[in-house]
Amino acid sequence: MKTAPLKSFTRKDQASVDTLRLLAADMVEKAKSGHPGLPLGAAPMAYVLWTRFLKHDPQSPNWPDRDRFILSPGHGSALLYAWLHLAGYDLSLEDLKDFRQWGSKTPGHPELGCALGVEATTGPLGHGFAMGVGLALAERHLAARFNQPGFPLFDHYTYALVSDGDLMEGVASEAASLAGAQGLGKLVYIYDDNQMTIEGPTELAFSEDVRARFLAYGWHVSVVSDGEDLLSVQLALENAKAERERPTLIMCRTKLGAGSPKADTPGAHGEPLGPEALEATRAFYGFADKPPFHVDPRVAANFAGWAQTHSSARQEWEARLSEYVGKYPELGSDLERSLAKRLPANFQETLAETAKSLFPAEKPIATRVASGKVINAVASVVPELLGGSADLAPSNKTQIDGESFMSHLFPAGRNIHFGVREHGMGAILNGLALHGGLIPFGGTFLVFSDFLRPAIRLSALMGQKVVYVLTHDSVGVGEDGPTHQPVEHVPALRLIPDLTVLRPADAYETAAAWASALSHDGPSALVLSRQNLPVLSPEKYPAVLEGPYKGGYVLSEAEGGKPEAIILASGSEVHLALAAQDLLKGKRAVRVVSMPSWELLAKQDEDYLNHILPPETTRRLAVEAARSFGWERWTGSQGRVLAVETFGRSAPAQRIFEEFGFTPENVAALVEGLF
Amino acid sequence: MKTAPLKSFTRKDQASVDTLRLLAADMVEKAKSGHPGLPLGAAPMAYVLWTRFLKHDPQSPNWPDRDRFILSPGHGSALLYAWLHLAGYDLSLEDLKDFRQWGSKTPGHPELGCALGVEATTGPLGHGFAMGVGLALAERHLAARFNQPGFPLFDHYTYALVSDGDLMEGVASEAASLAGAQGLGKLVYIYDDNQMTIEGPTELAFSEDVRARFLAYGWHVSVVSDGEDLLSVQLALENAKAERERPTLIMCRTKLGAGSPKADTPGAHGEPLGPEALEATRAFYGFADKPPFHVDPRVAANFAGWAQTHSSARQEWEARLSEYVGKYPELGSDLERSLAKRLPANFQETLAETAKSLFPAEKPIATRVASGKVINAVASVVPELLGGSADLAPSNKTQIDGESFMSHLFPAGRNIHFGVREHGMGAILNGLALHGGLIPFGGTFLVFSDFLRPAIRLSALMGQKVVYVLTHDSVGVGEDGPTHQPVEHVPALRLIPDLTVLRPADAYETAAAWASALSHDGPSALVLSRQNLPVLSPEKYPAVLEGPYKGGYVLSEAEGGKPEAIILASGSEVHLALAAQDLLKGKRAVRVVSMPSWELLAKQDEDYLNHILPPETTRRLAVEAARSFGWERWTGSQGRVLAVETFGRSAPAQRIFEEFGFTPENVAALVEGLF
Repeated sequence: MKTAPLKSFTRKDQASVDTLRLLAADMVEKAKSGHPGLPLGAAPMAYVLWTRFLKHDPQSPNWPDRDRFILSPGHGSALLYAWLHLAGYDLSLEDLKDFRQWGSKTPGHPELGCALGVEATTGPLGHGFAMGVGLALAERHLAARFNQPGFPLFDHYTYALVSDGDLMEGVASEAASLAGAQGLGKLVYIYDDNQMTIEGPTELAFSEDVRARFLAYGWHVSVVSDGEDLLSVQLALENAKAERERPTLIMCRTKLGAGSPKADTPGAHGEPLGPEALEATRAFYGFADKPPFHVDPRVAANFAGWAQTHSSARQEWEARLSEYVGKYPELGSDLERSLAKRLPANFQETLAETAKSLFPAEKPIATRVASGKVINAVASVVPELLGGSADLAPSNKTQIDGESFMSHLFPAGRNIHFGVREHGMGAILNGLALHGGLIPFGGTFLVFSDFLRPAIRLSALMGQKVVYVLTHDSVGVGEDGPTHQPVEHVPALRLIPDLTVLRPADAYETAAAWASALSHDGPSALVLSRQNLPVLSPEKYPAVLEGPYKGGYVLSEAEGGKPEAIILASGSEVHLALAAQDLLKGKRAVRVVSMPSWELLAKQDEDYLNHILPPETTRRLAVEAARSFGWERWTGSQGRVLAVETFGRSAPAQRIFEEFGFTPENVAALVEGLF
Repeated sequence: MKTAPLKSFTRKDQASVDTLRLLAADMVEKAKSGHPGLPLGAAPMAYVLWTRFLKHDPQSPNWPDRDRFILSPGHGSALLYAWLHLAGYDLSLEDLKDFRQWGSKTPGHPELGCALGVEATTGPLGHGFAMGVGLALAERHLAARFNQPGFPLFDHYTYALVSDGDLMEGVASEAASLAGAQGLGKLVYIYDDNQMTIEGPTELAFSEDVRARFLAYGWHVSVVSDGEDLLSVQLALENAKAERERPTLIMCRTKLGAGSPKADTPGAHGEPLGPEALEATRAFYGFADKPPFHVDPRVAANFAGWAQTHSSARQEWEARLSEYVGKYPELGSDLERSLAKRLPANFQETLAETAKSLFPAEKPIATRVASGKVINAVASVVPELLGGSADLAPSNKTQIDGESFMSHLFPAGRNIHFGVREHGMGAILNGLALHGGLIPFGGTFLVFSDFLRPAIRLSALMGQKVVYVLTHDSVGVGEDGPTHQPVEHVPALRLIPDLTVLRPADAYETAAAWASALSHDGPSALVLSRQNLPVLSPEKYPAVLEGPYKGGYVLSEAEGGKPEAIILASGSEVHLALAAQDLLKGKRAVRVVSMPSWELLAKQDEDYLNHILPPETTRRLAVEAARSFGWERWTGSQGRVLAVETFGRSAPAQRIFEEFGFTPENVAALVEGLF
């Protein structure tokens, strides 16, 4: 890959930089809302990166081997939009003028799916930084898997602009340490080192030696002492590309709100400059006589020219891919299929068959163990599946047997040691998914889903297919006690829009949960037991094979087929429900509805819902070892919920369940109480 | 303060170390559950710290000027319990044998309140590390406020044992950077550097240069190459104490599971050794002929002797305090009151009066702004109140005017720059609260409550009075868009047991929310609006003065006093409810119930609940700009909820509210729909 030869920049370049600045400031001013400070200070370095380095093609924004660029401080979105417009992406001047308005392509923070060229939703600080690490891991992995002599299908860089806020966030620290351990040589971050935060100079709370910290992580660090100096930025980027063993952080000294009367003050950060200060800023940059949103034709031509730079590379790549597919048909078909987000045709079938052979009904098995078996079965037919755990693989059962662990030496490894870094893991999973061509999963204890909740939220907001494997569900964790026992986490996950939460009751439901998670768009959270659970034999419970895909189903019908009462349950409590049904046999006609996923159930039509939960059957008991929030919508106000409303306790699990009333006898008594 | 003179350690010391080891291993074995690896490896350094350095008195476990010790890797609890027993805390050998059993004083992870001498609940990695930073900030602050010449009332160290897991966690990185910036010279951490994690050697994912990283944060770092060498540990601790400008990390090379056949393997971490390996371990330490739970009388005497070391210091301190109270009656009374967790007698009254003067009903005011005024009013009468924001003070309105910012130079400052470190802030707030004598608060945007959720959970689990100031509630955030608009966060917070969530509707309810938060034990989350909200004038709505304390109340009665329908609302939506009530006037008799806090309301008696929500009035509409989860319990199944079930959008707030149906007209129409 070639980059531009080293040379001086011209007045045209400076005018282009300043146009980016003022477009951004104009956008913020017009919207009466937004962040002018970052664009004014960071435009020069972004300009050098975007024009001289970034391998991209506005005509083909999703070209798989494009360089990725992430604006980690998403509040600087106006700068990104201004460039996307000038570079020729499908973003008009009118779109810029519509900044931060209802339904526009230019929302307040960059959102995946609103404007082409936006690679990730950013705004929650640290996440852009950490997602970039996932993108770089993905590139290296895909290169190792697919590249062949003469066919460098994957050979791109991952760039990001990062801020002091990003570097202070723990999620970025976690990802930075892992990026160093992984030796991600094609990861290049420019640090907008403006030394100013919302509360004042960074030194107030951030006096650490950033350079030394990143060196300690195993990064290559360089310093550009004047962020206005385009040539120095170019040199630093050249050096970063030459460094292939370590990720690079370029510390670029800038001024927040450069050129405005508010420069170097917190006031430049997050509100329009205001007419007067904007006027002064225009004058400073020689735009005094220009109207808002002015783009000089020479500037427009300059951006258009640079945007063309890589279109031939893109075309060559496409030709190369065609040839590759002919020469390596199996790899080629896997690649095209996985980039198109299609599962293998035989996927569902294979999985169902595997389930039958894997789970003999005689032997109780923890759903986390069943999940481990499913992962291994699926991994053999879905090569794009990869993942790991935040240092709990042996407990989470997330290891793909016979595959190596991903590292600098084994980039094709499909197992990832994330270290004790739940939050970083979540964000990196998002990066892996964003790249395209991969389906990532990551495991930790359910109770620690709190640690990566912001990442799960972003998976959902971006609609990324990430599978969170959350084991050690409920007070069933036992002796480890309340710090390790999730009681609020299942309902808390259900609260995240567009996340599918699946709490399977046994091995078969676990297989179905995985199948669902892999088949639909967007993220899923699998909630899995530490303790063994009976297997719902399909001979006895034929509904277990198809029912779980609907999110809720009649697992065991009431005697005579006419339920007087219904027990609704999920996960381990389904077996309690069945036991209570047994105890009540001959006395009360009780139906057991297994509800592994509220989200899937809510998508069913009313007929189906009325079929499994007939409106006239108002005697309903929900049983779930978690807080009861939200169950009322399924039980109705005449129903009851057996739940865990307090923190858990440290003791053997069976004892805790008994103390909390999770016994067949108590469930049966509660059903009786409905009569 | 004196410490032991430097001298060689004897066989008695080694026997004591080994007794700690084997007691811990025996506990795990008997419980058939637990973590023997850490105790076996870390016992020597813990022994040196606990006997030669830790200023404590088992006879007075809560002595305010005791040194604090945190076991950050809480899974090593058996080691801590073994020592607490041997040191003479109220923890018997029977308690040790009851490890991890229902109702015991020795739960799986250390839990505040179960055994005296346990300073914090630990287990979620990184949090112990970060809470220690809060403890050290508290000590320095209280010393600056209360110490007088000849009266060093606060002069203690904060120690912790930390693990590789802690150092990988982002929350610890955040806290470490802040501890460096604050120059916390009396913070001393020993790093149990056993180079082994659950998934294998630390180098798999944690190859960074820890020493260089902590030097970069501004820490003093020393290395003990052999963690079995008691004298080297002592020397390192002496040096750490001599360093008064920087926090210290002592990297102590140890072996996970030292002395057991599983030493230096992940298998030593988290399960009993098993009879054979335990036998071999006993033999290794010369305990082959000893029964489980053996304590040699000379070892018992050794621990008892060391535990006596500081009892005279404690007695002197108490005498000093008495004298101090006489000499500095005002300070003394403040100190005794705040240590006893009592608010000033005039607190409630002052606050109510302040509210009246602060909030003229003519002027709409955002509840975040009202909160800022309340903080300032309260701060003047409650000197133990202090806090800050994760770099959003100007937005969160968390600054106490006229007070300095806490730093090495101004340790008495009551404002804290936490930096862009939400998670670290939360954990540090817990540490500040745990110390005693302080009531800490911390602000960020509500949507970022996800970042510090694990800390909020620990506040609740430990029952600590921490006030979370969460501003920029709901889609009312406007242009910043979905990354910044909380939709699931209010219900997600309500899910955390023992957390009080308060979403006030106006300035008066905000004052009441603060009063509630400060008056009851345990943590509170204040959910505050970015946008201006009308003030509920007490002339028009007299209930606003007392009602909010009950969590829910009739704010505006239906015409004629007999409601045909009830609108339940919280926060900004209360005003919508009032407007809809107005629109329906003459047509439908509608009552408006304001519900700032479900938790407070749920504590009221049935009479009160039936009074505000009469069972016969089943036409109920809940209005809250958040996900609807849980509202059914208040509306009943015949009611409805106007909620926000999807992610938000980027646009001016008013537009979003309209698009989402949050208009008086739509609320009125939905009420009509109930008829």
